Amino acid sequence: MSSVTAVCHTKVPRNANMEQLQSGYLFPEVSIRQQAYMEKHPDAELISLGIGDTTEPIPRIVTSAMAEYCHALSTLEGYRGYGAEQGNMELRKAIAEVIYKDTGVNQSEVFVSDGAQCDISRIQMLLGSNVTMAVQDPSFPAYIDSGVIMGQAGTYRPGTGEYGRIEYMRCTPDQLFFPDLSATPRTDVVFFCSPNNPTGHAASRAQLEQLVSFARRNGSIIVYDSAYSSYISDGSPRSIYEIPGSKEVAIEVSSFSKFAGFTGVRLGWTVVPEELTYANGFPVGRDFNRIICTSFNGASSIAQAGGLACLSDEGLEAMHAIIGVYKENAAALAETFRLMGLETYGGQNSPYVWVHFPGRSSWQVFSEILEKANVVTIPGVGFGPSGEGFVRMSSFARRESIHEACRRFWRVFGSRSQAHCSRQCVSGAMMN
Amino acid sequence: MSSVTAVCHTKVPRNANMEQLQSGYLFPEVSIRQQAYMEKHPDAELISLGIGDTTEPIPRIVTSAMAEYCHALSTLEGYRGYGAEQGNMELRKAIAEVIYKDTGVNQSEVFVSDGAQCDISRIQMLLGSNVTMAVQDPSFPAYIDSGVIMGQAGTYRPGTGEYGRIEYMRCTPDQLFFPDLSATPRTDVVFFCSPNNPTGHAASRAQLEQLVSFARRNGSIIVYDSAYSSYISDGSPRSIYEIPGSKEVAIEVSSFSKFAGFTGVRLGWTVVPEELTYANGFPVGRDFNRIICTSFNGASSIAQAGGLACLSDEGLEAMHAIIGVYKENAAALAETFRLMGLETYGGQNSPYVWVHFPGRSSWQVFSEILEKANVVTIPGVGFGPSGEGFVRMSSFARRESIHEACRRFWRVFGSRSQAHCSRQCVSGAMMN
Repeated sequence: MSSVTAVCHTKVPRNANMEQLQSGYLFPEVSIRQQAYMEKHPDAELISLGIGDTTEPIPRIVTSAMAEYCHALSTLEGYRGYGAEQGNMELRKAIAEVIYKDTGVNQSEVFVSDGAQCDISRIQMLLGSNVTMAVQDPSFPAYIDSGVIMGQAGTYRPGTGEYGRIEYMRCTPDQLFFPDLSATPRTDVVFFCSPNNPTGHAASRAQLEQLVSFARRNGSIIVYDSAYSSYISDGSPRSIYEIPGSKEVAIEVSSFSKFAGFTGVRLGWTVVPEELTYANGFPVGRDFNRIICTSFNGASSIAQAGGLACLSDEGLEAMHAIIGVYKENAAALAETFRLMGLETYGGQNSPYVWVHFPGRSSWQVFSEILEKANVVTIPGVGFGPSGEGFVRMSSFARRESIHEACRRFWRVFGSRSQAHCSRQCVSGAMMN
Repeated sequence: MSSVTAVCHTKVPRNANMEQLQSGYLFPEVSIRQQAYMEKHPDAELISLGIGDTTEPIPRIVTSAMAEYCHALSTLEGYRGYGAEQGNMELRKAIAEVIYKDTGVNQSEVFVSDGAQCDISRIQMLLGSNVTMAVQDPSFPAYIDSGVIMGQAGTYRPGTGEYGRIEYMRCTPDQLFFPDLSATPRTDVVFFCSPNNPTGHAASRAQLEQLVSFARRNGSIIVYDSAYSSYISDGSPRSIYEIPGSKEVAIEVSSFSKFAGFTGVRLGWTVVPEELTYANGFPVGRDFNRIICTSFNGASSIAQAGGLACLSDEGLEAMHAIIGVYKENAAALAETFRLMGLETYGGQNSPYVWVHFPGRSSWQVFSEILEKANVVTIPGVGFGPSGEGFVRMSSFARRESIHEACRRFWRVFGSRSQAHCSRQCVSGAMMN
């Protein structure tokens, strides 16, 4: 075509926010390294305790409900097109009644989504580029990365692992995984995940009361991620809305992924209470609804049918049986590392175990575990500067894989140590 | 709790971009008015030709594939957790090979999504707030609204229906629904939908060659929405990639919604060619991949299993049979309005019929049709200032509803007119 002139590049500027993102997003980055290892060692029998990807089949009561819904889609009576962008009212009602029993959450405040990570990004879009944000350090990287994409994060400070405009709230073991709020400056938004990913720590009622009180004093919005709340078994709150006064200051994001093995099915929800308003009094929920209608078109109707089955009595029973399996896995992992003398956290209220290798680089430990034990983990520093020296292990694996992983850990690292030898000694052994 | 101080409002500023959005998003706004009418007239038997929502059941070959996938999720062998964020490779391959046959699109350039509207929003997030954009006028409102949310649109100019920083490319019938590109200023991004929603016009090969040439000269990125391409039957291009030179300047967004009745199932895709780069040479696809990994976690695996079945030989045959039904519906609607002497467009390559009521307000015509014929339509002005005086009718309805709607149109509006009376006469009759 003679009218076509040669172009090498368009004249469109690359989004400056995208340029601020550091390397790859953590989990794909781990996959790439795992893949590279597999290519070099095609016979290696890798066990993945890395990405928190569910492994137990979904109970039949749930898959049957979804299959039935699929079949109905090929009938005149059963066919359904677009659903409400906010989700089917029946599911919103079930979430309000089952998950938020006695917390005063109304079905109209529940927005069904295709997963917590997607809604976190939509919440960032809702809030825009001018808000300031705080995150737990360490925390799930999507909070920060989505903030960077929206231009909230400021400039990356090489060497520190931090962005200039983000407030990093250290949540280290010596602080009982809770920030020193008296030393934390006010931000517009506070991302808080409990049970925390990666540390596995479930915030106590007293801690969450402090958090809500802090947000109320500051006029901040808490974005509370409760994606792992179904793993809580020690009586810690499962929702921020168990804390009085929270509805005026908190959004809650959650998911069926780890609760029901829906990582591939894709279903989650977000609660935006009616009481939550911007400084000018405008309801946050009304803007969130506009985002949902404009940028999202509802979760898959099939996944929603599955979600509803999960929340039936029989469904809940089946879910909790599976959660029990993962929690036993977590206990086995935690016990192994404790016997090796390593400081080990999480596992009790969470599918994640957080292991400390003092003085070591997380990525080095990641590589060493990958090479010597053929086990994939997640380097703690990927979750923030305070994660340096830690590695996250996921209990989302088949029982036999968990046992095999524990055996390998012992074989490779444990044989040189004694159960009663000092932490330094084991950590030293793992270094060689 | 004594430590909780009373808050009425948080101190978080409302996102200024959200404040720029005008009233509700078009389709929910139509639903609200429809709902209000129903409440006042609970016995009215409304026919919806409004929101383009599919009504034909999904062929059994597709629902069976999805149901089978659901059942497999409850078995050890069939259970799958997270898939690749970009979509299952088998589906990406099928999209590349079936939809983009002979256009040189590679499976690695195909990103599976949960629908075109969601990806439009993610593309806006990718591009950021500093790009300039052009849209067809009229066009699908999500392009503009998502641009407003990202801060690309500038200030709304009351009375004009336009935003200061958006270039509105008039695509009226007298221009054969194609913009006068010689009078169109350069923008970074050009949104272009063909077959167009709402006008139903499929751009010709010559028109698309002009568009690509325009983008190449200007170094712009075309975001080409081909969500209705399967309705094309006159030989017009079904993809922008049929135009030589397009891969260096165009992203294509598309969907299974109107192709396979997946409006509720949620499945779509976006093609970002490897050749497409920013001004600095950085590949656009690499940033889009980062957005997908950070802000999205892949489409539902069940929907993806269905998408794969749609693209089998048997699936394609079944899809085209259903598309044929909708196209016959569209032809019946178009014929009715033509016989009433109204200028009527679309329908041939599209499920939409675009009817002109000269001198009338679209919302008035919308209300009149709702009240007198109990038929829900979409007011043309909701798609842009050039849509004023038009109404969009969707052919996504059961055949008996289409026939009943046509009868009502005749009964209410047609009786006063003769097939040979002038357009003004009919339009006048409808006004009374």
